[in-house]
Amino acid sequence: MFGEKIEDRVNHPLIKPQIDVIGLTYEMAQNPRYEELTTAKSHLTGEKVNRFTHIHQNTDDLIKKVQMTRMYARYCLCIQRCMAIDALNALSIITYEIDKKHKTNYFENLNNYVRFFQKEDIAATCAMTDVKGDRSLRPADQADKDLYVRVVEKREDGIVVRGAKAHTTAAVPSNEIIVMPTRALRDKDENYAVAFAVPVDAPGLKFIARSTVPREMGKMDAPFRTRWGVTETVTIFDDVFVPWDRVFMCGEWEFGGLAAELFAIYHRHSYCGCKPGVSDVLMGVAALLAEYNNVEGASHIQGKLTGIACTAEEIYACGIAGSVRGKPMGPGTYVPDITLVNIGKYIAGTHIYEEIYRVHDIAGGLAITCPSEKDYFHPEVKPYLEKYLKGKTDVPTEDRVRAFKLCEDLTAHGFAGWIMVASCHGGGSPEAQMITIYRGYDFKKRKEIAKCLAGIKKFEEFPEFEG
Amino acid sequence: MFGEKIEDRVNHPLIKPQIDVIGLTYEMAQNPRYEELTTAKSHLTGEKVNRFTHIHQNTDDLIKKVQMTRMYARYCLCIQRCMAIDALNALSIITYEIDKKHKTNYFENLNNYVRFFQKEDIAATCAMTDVKGDRSLRPADQADKDLYVRVVEKREDGIVVRGAKAHTTAAVPSNEIIVMPTRALRDKDENYAVAFAVPVDAPGLKFIARSTVPREMGKMDAPFRTRWGVTETVTIFDDVFVPWDRVFMCGEWEFGGLAAELFAIYHRHSYCGCKPGVSDVLMGVAALLAEYNNVEGASHIQGKLTGIACTAEEIYACGIAGSVRGKPMGPGTYVPDITLVNIGKYIAGTHIYEEIYRVHDIAGGLAITCPSEKDYFHPEVKPYLEKYLKGKTDVPTEDRVRAFKLCEDLTAHGFAGWIMVASCHGGGSPEAQMITIYRGYDFKKRKEIAKCLAGIKKFEEFPEFEG
Amino acid sequence: MFGEKIEDRVNHPLIKPQIDVIGLTYEMAQNPRYEELTTAKSHLTGEKVNRFTHIHQNTDDLIKKVQMTRMYARYCLCIQRCMAIDALNALSIITYEIDKKHKTNYFENLNNYVRFFQKEDIAATCAMTDVKGDRSLRPADQADKDLYVRVVEKREDGIVVRGAKAHTTAAVPSNEIIVMPTRALRDKDENYAVAFAVPVDAPGLKFIARSTVPREMGKMDAPFRTRWGVTETVTIFDDVFVPWDRVFMCGEWEFGGLAAELFAIYHRHSYCGCKPGVSDVLMGVAALLAEYNNVEGASHIQGKLTGIACTAEEIYACGIAGSVRGKPMGPGTYVPDITLVNIGKYIAGTHIYEEIYRVHDIAGGLAITCPSEKDYFHPEVKPYLEKYLKGKTDVPTEDRVRAFKLCEDLTAHGFAGWIMVASCHGGGSPEAQMITIYRGYDFKKRKEIAKCLAGIKKFEEFPEFEG
Amino acid sequence: MFGEKIEDRVNHPLIKPQIDVIGLTYEMAQNPRYEELTTAKSHLTGEKVNRFTHIHQNTDDLIKKVQMTRMYARYCLCIQRCMAIDALNALSIITYEIDKKHKTNYFENLNNYVRFFQKEDIAATCAMTDVKGDRSLRPADQADKDLYVRVVEKREDGIVVRGAKAHTTAAVPSNEIIVMPTRALRDKDENYAVAFAVPVDAPGLKFIARSTVPREMGKMDAPFRTRWGVTETVTIFDDVFVPWDRVFMCGEWEFGGLAAELFAIYHRHSYCGCKPGVSDVLMGVAALLAEYNNVEGASHIQGKLTGIACTAEEIYACGIAGSVRGKPMGPGTYVPDITLVNIGKYIAGTHIYEEIYRVHDIAGGLAITCPSEKDYFHPEVKPYLEKYLKGKTDVPTEDRVRAFKLCEDLTAHGFAGWIMVASCHGGGSPEAQMITIYRGYDFKKRKEIAKCLAGIKKFEEFPEFEG
Repeated sequence: MFGEKIEDRVNHPLIKPQIDVIGLTYEMAQNPRYEELTTAKSHLTGEKVNRFTHIHQNTDDLIKKVQMTRMYARYCLCIQRCMAIDALNALSIITYEIDKKHKTNYFENLNNYVRFFQKEDIAATCAMTDVKGDRSLRPADQADKDLYVRVVEKREDGIVVRGAKAHTTAAVPSNEIIVMPTRALRDKDENYAVAFAVPVDAPGLKFIARSTVPREMGKMDAPFRTRWGVTETVTIFDDVFVPWDRVFMCGEWEFGGLAAELFAIYHRHSYCGCKPGVSDVLMGVAALLAEYNNVEGASHIQGKLTGIACTAEEIYACGIAGSVRGKPMGPGTYVPDITLVNIGKYIAGTHIYEEIYRVHDIAGGLAITCPSEKDYFHPEVKPYLEKYLKGKTDVPTEDRVRAFKLCEDLTAHGFAGWIMVASCHGGGSPEAQMITIYRGYDFKKRKEIAKCLAGIKKFEEFPEFEG
Repeated sequence: MFGEKIEDRVNHPLIKPQIDVIGLTYEMAQNPRYEELTTAKSHLTGEKVNRFTHIHQNTDDLIKKVQMTRMYARYCLCIQRCMAIDALNALSIITYEIDKKHKTNYFENLNNYVRFFQKEDIAATCAMTDVKGDRSLRPADQADKDLYVRVVEKREDGIVVRGAKAHTTAAVPSNEIIVMPTRALRDKDENYAVAFAVPVDAPGLKFIARSTVPREMGKMDAPFRTRWGVTETVTIFDDVFVPWDRVFMCGEWEFGGLAAELFAIYHRHSYCGCKPGVSDVLMGVAALLAEYNNVEGASHIQGKLTGIACTAEEIYACGIAGSVRGKPMGPGTYVPDITLVNIGKYIAGTHIYEEIYRVHDIAGGLAITCPSEKDYFHPEVKPYLEKYLKGKTDVPTEDRVRAFKLCEDLTAHGFAGWIMVASCHGGGSPEAQMITIYRGYDFKKRKEIAKCLAGIKKFEEFPEFEG
Repeated sequence: MFGEKIEDRVNHPLIKPQIDVIGLTYEMAQNPRYEELTTAKSHLTGEKVNRFTHIHQNTDDLIKKVQMTRMYARYCLCIQRCMAIDALNALSIITYEIDKKHKTNYFENLNNYVRFFQKEDIAATCAMTDVKGDRSLRPADQADKDLYVRVVEKREDGIVVRGAKAHTTAAVPSNEIIVMPTRALRDKDENYAVAFAVPVDAPGLKFIARSTVPREMGKMDAPFRTRWGVTETVTIFDDVFVPWDRVFMCGEWEFGGLAAELFAIYHRHSYCGCKPGVSDVLMGVAALLAEYNNVEGASHIQGKLTGIACTAEEIYACGIAGSVRGKPMGPGTYVPDITLVNIGKYIAGTHIYEEIYRVHDIAGGLAITCPSEKDYFHPEVKPYLEKYLKGKTDVPTEDRVRAFKLCEDLTAHGFAGWIMVASCHGGGSPEAQMITIYRGYDFKKRKEIAKCLAGIKKFEEFPEFEG
Repeated sequence: MFGEKIEDRVNHPLIKPQIDVIGLTYEMAQNPRYEELTTAKSHLTGEKVNRFTHIHQNTDDLIKKVQMTRMYARYCLCIQRCMAIDALNALSIITYEIDKKHKTNYFENLNNYVRFFQKEDIAATCAMTDVKGDRSLRPADQADKDLYVRVVEKREDGIVVRGAKAHTTAAVPSNEIIVMPTRALRDKDENYAVAFAVPVDAPGLKFIARSTVPREMGKMDAPFRTRWGVTETVTIFDDVFVPWDRVFMCGEWEFGGLAAELFAIYHRHSYCGCKPGVSDVLMGVAALLAEYNNVEGASHIQGKLTGIACTAEEIYACGIAGSVRGKPMGPGTYVPDITLVNIGKYIAGTHIYEEIYRVHDIAGGLAITCPSEKDYFHPEVKPYLEKYLKGKTDVPTEDRVRAFKLCEDLTAHGFAGWIMVASCHGGGSPEAQMITIYRGYDFKKRKEIAKCLAGIKKFEEFPEFEG
């Protein structure tokens, strides 16, 4: 992180705000008000567990996950524990299916790991996206064979892996890292078909991190970034050893695509919860500034606020409906509807920019020109700013300035960049969603409908409604 | 209809295709495959009834209504019996609430009417939208007092109503007309607060109709419009008598707004089902032409097809999620989530144009330049057209021409105009939906969130998540 | 046309309205008010000629062509003589360039033809788009070799051509047909590299036509379609002989791409004039209905009207700026800026749908439900309609009905289909425009800028501004 | 600026990069390659002057201003001297018109000031936007009368002004501040009708500034923000004295609206030049990353790049066409077309967000996760990053990292916030542009066209084309 080595990650000023995010997930799980959302009953042990460690057993679990995620996102925008739950659910199906075909015992490994995970309420992340090198080439075809994480040695007691994952969002505050393949593989990519879990202090595992927390800003200037943080890491696997009981896939290349797709479905499902929460905050800021500027009555202001609300609820509707239409796979793990969660994520990733536009449009220029906290409280300067930054009469100038500062913090600096790019590329790019939708959608049936209506086929052959 | 008087509406060539649409709702209710969707158990009698006559008793009823509507729309785009079910559900709440306040007995009237309606499986429509005159003036302020339907006489045995409703979509093939007020009312609009039902042959009730069915086109040129039809009427109430037991509101002006809003919610909920069905057909036509032109592999073609699919599923997601989040009102009638169904309808009404664009873009110019059926089958001309309108080798030219004709029939003539304007204005205009969403949305809570994050309020006062 | 043979095209009721469109171009050329726009000075003879026969000699000619086109489009939406002027200008360059390379004398042929064309003030069209068969195959690879127009025989006195062109917009009212290749060609497509002109009565030339004019509608119901018309033809070249002095390309396959591209540039330039004129009419109808409904004061109505105006002026700006930035090619013929006219046409072809949406949104449901002319004037019905279709007090009901009828005629029936598809595909599809822009745009220079700013290259190497 | 007092503004690390921007305008005016663009011949003295000090004398001047602005924006995105030229041009008309009505001599004052301005090649800004207080109240109605700048004393030798302007973009590096009223005024706002110029060191004039330059970032991490800067100030007029010969308006409240509008037209005209330059840089970064990631061949990547190009050229087309259609006002100063420059600015302000989306989509997640410069060059870390951040084989990793850093610097941190909000609100908000277009557009003529086509008026009354 900026050329320094971190020894004490918990108290490092650039990391602590992220630890606090994770802390929220323990705190809220104790809160009786949110118990139903934040906890679940383990299908393995029957114990009450943090929902972030749960394997979805029915559509209600899927709905609650979306709701919980939105609830958390209203506090901190990115709750960061979704990667692990999404990976574990995907692995619960993949390991089951691999075992069925290959008589391996990954599913038992996974269940044991989940038991440990639930009991200890482990905070983990999933390192998914490889660094990829030349993006036009597949893993085994890269000039440097390490540009996708791969198995370099199989030993009696375990495997040794090498490579790097990029954009690992919550490695720094985690206990564990779960690793999965990032794409469909061919037989010659066999060594790249590997899934496993390691503790963050595994020898050879290295994190090159960066944080959204600003080094030297006050709480008024950066009220959000000083409270909550995110780190991103390039995660290096410098010949990391993984014992067999923590391996969930090793060489079964034909499952690479499904693994990547299942994680993507679950993670896009997560976005259907968190992104509406982000919008809740953005529209809150915008509505507050509209009030403070006394322009709430203007119809274009109302239209722009409503526009943000619509984006939020469209995404959320995809999450809820995608949950309702969920189906069990493998051992009975519920998977949300692939089309709907992809649409939800697609809207999330492409509309965040328009939401920020709407916030800026409503806020006005002070969103980026409001003087700094140090200026504001400077004894010579304050009287001028108190006087001239006054908005609506009954609103203290300082409140208005604080609202503008939150607006700026969220939409005009590093966190804005992070939330835009994370919304766009997290869980896969918009194009990935479009392709997934195209491939999974039943256009054939629609063509049959057209044939019947056009008189090309008999009307009696009208295809059935799928429900 | 075009200056002629219709005596035998069932066999009139411009009306029969609409009778066939209504016929479909009786036929499918007998089809065991669709029994769960197309029928329900009456909460009044316990009998199995056509779902189009049912009062929604739970969220599952709401979901099934959306599904049923999409199923039907795939056949005929507009199934036309939704107006009545939407009106009856709205009236079940309104009559209950009026009785509670005014000790009237509209609710009993309504329940008796529903019993009759269910037993006879009545086809009806709801005449909702008044002709409105000068739109900037409210009912009692219009120069001509009849520009909104009103009570002109109260008699011992019933009331006499006068006025006209516009754009009544399915009056012609119906047995009954249900009438409701179209907007919020003031005390001086008291006479306009009237809801009731009349048979279509009630003395003084007159319909000036027009049909989407073309007068002289062949089944190849207009495969859709010759099979299924819609009529619109200006519905004249020329001093029509309504007995008291068919009156559901009379003078309780303060319920005018809620009546209009409830009908709107239910009808926008209907759109969340039918509009995706319309898209199913549109994307079917487009995908079929992409195949016949052999351009299915082009990524922009795939993107445009996916775009239509996304529109369909976004709307449907709003319908499903809006149903899941439904709540009981009045006597226990379930009402879908107001925000979500408004968003669904808003997307439906504004995106149909882009869908048609996508169909046209995929189809190419033949969508409007393909020679007519008479030309196609003309002995001198056919050899040329067989030869020169050939597309992909394994597709008969005639199939390709039929696909283009369906495309043209749906997207380039009178039915296209009808479906665009009906999507836009049916159930209220897009602006009406925006205003409804704005008014109903909890921006206040979002402002509170912003205040907590900005440091204007204490973080402990963070508002609760509503679920 | 619908299975009948046309002998007297001038007086045929489905064709006369199109003859009237062409007539307008002769009438306005006599109108002193528009002389500067509608006429030009021939660079070949120095005579005053109809601008539709002129070869552009400078940027002012290009600007005037755009202006003239918009002026005409306000009357009839599609003036239909642009195809010929666009083809002749493209051919003036192509013939010059072919001669330069191949020592042929096409340029002289073309100039002689232009002299004849100007002197006689010929109405012509350009038959451009081949029927294309399987769109994934190039001309010589099609199963049927005739699916692109080709030379089947070269004789001493001329050539014989066979094939068919689709979507020929104004063949029916024309004196002459100009033919050009529709795409880039390979050496094995040599026979498809052919450009020439023939009179419409050339032996073997056959037109299978259809018209936008409705068969049996009154002037009130279809005020536009009964006044002005368009025909589209499948144009068959059933071994048509063309004498050498009317041949402008024959076998020079390497010029096929440039020919198609030049025509496309000029024709997209035409769209930058006509499409704003279409918008002028659409916004006129919408603004008139807003007035008649008395909703002109609503801010969303104003916003939607302004939206149509913006679309119109963006396209027009591309036409004007594209003219200003025009450059001479070949013998000095001016060609507008390729990027700008492609953007203008792209906006035209993709935004017409949104414009129609805006018109519908502003108009309201009567846009498709207004009773017919026969009903309106029916003695029994008229009193009801006079009373109930009344809008704003000072506007006669009949005026309001007429405005709705124009709205319906333009946006909800066959002409709407025609204008949508013609805007989308005329002059090439939106995807064709995107690809043209991508290929022609100097992204390399922008990359160099980025390298300088990123510190990858020295700042001194900042690339020059091109003007 | 962050609570510190600046004595030496030229060498302050947060200000110097902005001084360098202004420096560029002197340097390029000496560059013979750009002489035509960057200089002009003064209409007052006949001398060659920096174009940033010139009063536009013809449409060519308007075109050149747009071109010059785009040229500069490619270097530094915001050239910052446009405010003064836009203010001076507006004042040349306003002073002339006021004199004509009131027999004042502001026009002479202004011409003398322009002579001084041109001779000394003054860098100035225009302080336009007042702090505004409660935005629903007009100047004289505010609780605190100083929330718009106003005259508090008229003396024999000059006036004394009080108040504050917000978002003054280039006050810090300027020699002079030009002040104009920001809105239409009523007679009771008379004291707010004031325009004048003062040197930046005028007694009582105070700037509370903030800079886009980051305090402690390296040239690799922030290649743009360390090279070029912008400051924004709250500009306080704490009873500043202005001698009469520097006063250009004082009390003529009826000219407030025109003054604001003229400045807005000119400044929106400036945006039609600078915003395309911003897009040039953005698409350069995106295209470079597409190359470095080796995804240039993907059609969705090409489509997104083309999308940015289209935005750039649409805006530029509005600038060029708006210049071509410019007209002289007042003393002969040329004013661009109001509709077109408003559309250009509207697109600029609303589409920047989509452009950033496209850049992010093309770039991928590294746009915000790329490790810092200090990490990159850290001896232990570098080998890992060199290896794992490698993209296309022939591109050095460091180049790729630098390209990502530029991308991040421009689109994901404070400058991104600045450019988004500045594009949105600079020169007035999008809503301001919409309203301006609506008010200025000739909808009446379009209604007349519709009446003629509908048969409401005679066709002979078809309105004339305006050219």
